[in-house]
Amino acid sequence: MSDMTERAERFVSELQDQICEALEAVEASAGSAARFVEDRWRRDGGGGGRTRVLEGGRVLEKAGVNVSAVWGAVPDAIKPQMPGDGETFFATGVSLVLHPHNPHAPTTHANFRYLARGQTGWFGGGADLTPYVLYEDDARHFHATLAEACRHGPPEPAGEPTRYQRYKRWCDEYFRNTHRDEGRGVGGIFYDHVMPRTGETLEQHFAFWAATGRAFLPAYLPILERRMTSPFDEALRRWQLVRRGRYVEFNLLHDRGTKFGLQTNGRVESILMSLPPLVRWDYAVEPAAGSPEARLIEVLRTPRDWLTGPADERPA
Amino acid sequence: MSDMTERAERFVSELQDQICEALEAVEASAGSAARFVEDRWRRDGGGGGRTRVLEGGRVLEKAGVNVSAVWGAVPDAIKPQMPGDGETFFATGVSLVLHPHNPHAPTTHANFRYLARGQTGWFGGGADLTPYVLYEDDARHFHATLAEACRHGPPEPAGEPTRYQRYKRWCDEYFRNTHRDEGRGVGGIFYDHVMPRTGETLEQHFAFWAATGRAFLPAYLPILERRMTSPFDEALRRWQLVRRGRYVEFNLLHDRGTKFGLQTNGRVESILMSLPPLVRWDYAVEPAAGSPEARLIEVLRTPRDWLTGPADERPA
Repeated sequence: MSDMTERAERFVSELQDQICEALEAVEASAGSAARFVEDRWRRDGGGGGRTRVLEGGRVLEKAGVNVSAVWGAVPDAIKPQMPGDGETFFATGVSLVLHPHNPHAPTTHANFRYLARGQTGWFGGGADLTPYVLYEDDARHFHATLAEACRHGPPEPAGEPTRYQRYKRWCDEYFRNTHRDEGRGVGGIFYDHVMPRTGETLEQHFAFWAATGRAFLPAYLPILERRMTSPFDEALRRWQLVRRGRYVEFNLLHDRGTKFGLQTNGRVESILMSLPPLVRWDYAVEPAAGSPEARLIEVLRTPRDWLTGPADERPA
Repeated sequence: MSDMTERAERFVSELQDQICEALEAVEASAGSAARFVEDRWRRDGGGGGRTRVLEGGRVLEKAGVNVSAVWGAVPDAIKPQMPGDGETFFATGVSLVLHPHNPHAPTTHANFRYLARGQTGWFGGGADLTPYVLYEDDARHFHATLAEACRHGPPEPAGEPTRYQRYKRWCDEYFRNTHRDEGRGVGGIFYDHVMPRTGETLEQHFAFWAATGRAFLPAYLPILERRMTSPFDEALRRWQLVRRGRYVEFNLLHDRGTKFGLQTNGRVESILMSLPPLVRWDYAVEPAAGSPEARLIEVLRTPRDWLTGPADERPA
């Protein structure tokens, strides 16, 4: 186990570096000198993290890319939900949320984590996309890149849903504003408790996990780069701010990670760095029928199959 | 009981009219023609409401003043939390949140409700103040006005904490962002399940409830009127938007009324009209030591006794 804890911690740390460097390069390409600022913090019970935040960039209005590695006694409250047995745990992960300024560029979130309790280790993670304007090509590129990464890992039995199909559906189900009957975005993948079954190795699952982590930049960066300079008017900016309100609603009302972090005395500013920089709540916003805004809502209501395209939309 | 349901429903309806008229008069005094817009809605299981929202006023950036009267079968999920017995309930109330534009003017929330299940009826309610700049005179006036209203109702036994003292403390405890160890504001009063004990009548409690409802305008309006035209700069506006983020955090993470409403398929736009019109989340905002912003936080951390003044501050 301890070999894997070290490898996983090194992996998320290197991924943090790569992602921050790539995003700073995007800022530089737009003529901005915006950089990530790092806060190192320590956890009382054991471990700590490095929170990196970039605010007020020309491209990224707010971006947070955090890593942590924490360990200690398993809190009683979460014992029943945690695989494995034993009184101590180890957890390491990278977690990011990027809020571009331009409403044509989607918000994205990703998280890749490794946990261990006693002799049991497992992976969790995922990446998802939240557009304000629906570009189907963007959604297809994002999903196709993640689907390709999901081919890594233990061999997949023929005739069963693929890893990508399962984790795509899990993502659609998890990131849902149930109180509005809307997805938070156009999805991506989400998985948890990924560990070896009979005949599989932890190593194989590490390969899957690392592949999805490495896929984040190629999945998102081309989208950011092609949308970050699109012209927009005040009405579209306002729509973006209203939709960011839905992002806040999901994170504070429904997201188990946020709740779990706050309930277990996690570092509040690192957990809530996910919240958008500027947000509106207007009363009863209803996009005009047939408008691009209405078409976006339609797709958020009824998740699509983004690999096979609009002709094969999943029925409601 | 049915006599009280009618009286309570009429009372909250008249209070809604009075409050909306008074706020429209404030807008008019500031040279604005902003008016409340009403949405009437019906509830599938029985009853409905009138949601009134004013947006983009010169004084009030966003204001919602809602009434509802709903009835039907008690949902299984909430039976254990509901006093009384019987399979049907009735609930009526007025609920309001006012978000002034000017950061010197505090946000306020109030709610006055009557519920009945079978032969048991009870009152709930309260009003509280959330300043962005601490004016101690404002907090004292708000609390003193509510304390005076709390003298109505059944006689209070000598030597025990007064209704105001109990409901003031309940308010401090309830409206708390526990994840930040901060109160949402400088409090006010909060009460629930107020019903006759031996020797008391429902009529006496109606008198208390109605007095606190009628006290809302005299408690808040003078504060709004004396702060609504104070000059402010961009830095103070930004501070207001950041603090409004704490308001959102409370309502979505902690407020039982919001959670209950969303879980029981309440009308989403009426429930979430409480959220501020424009909000910021900046990373790790820390006011300078000794600044007015830091003094506000200090008071939010450690609730004060606002009737006796700063010399008698409650110890932490």
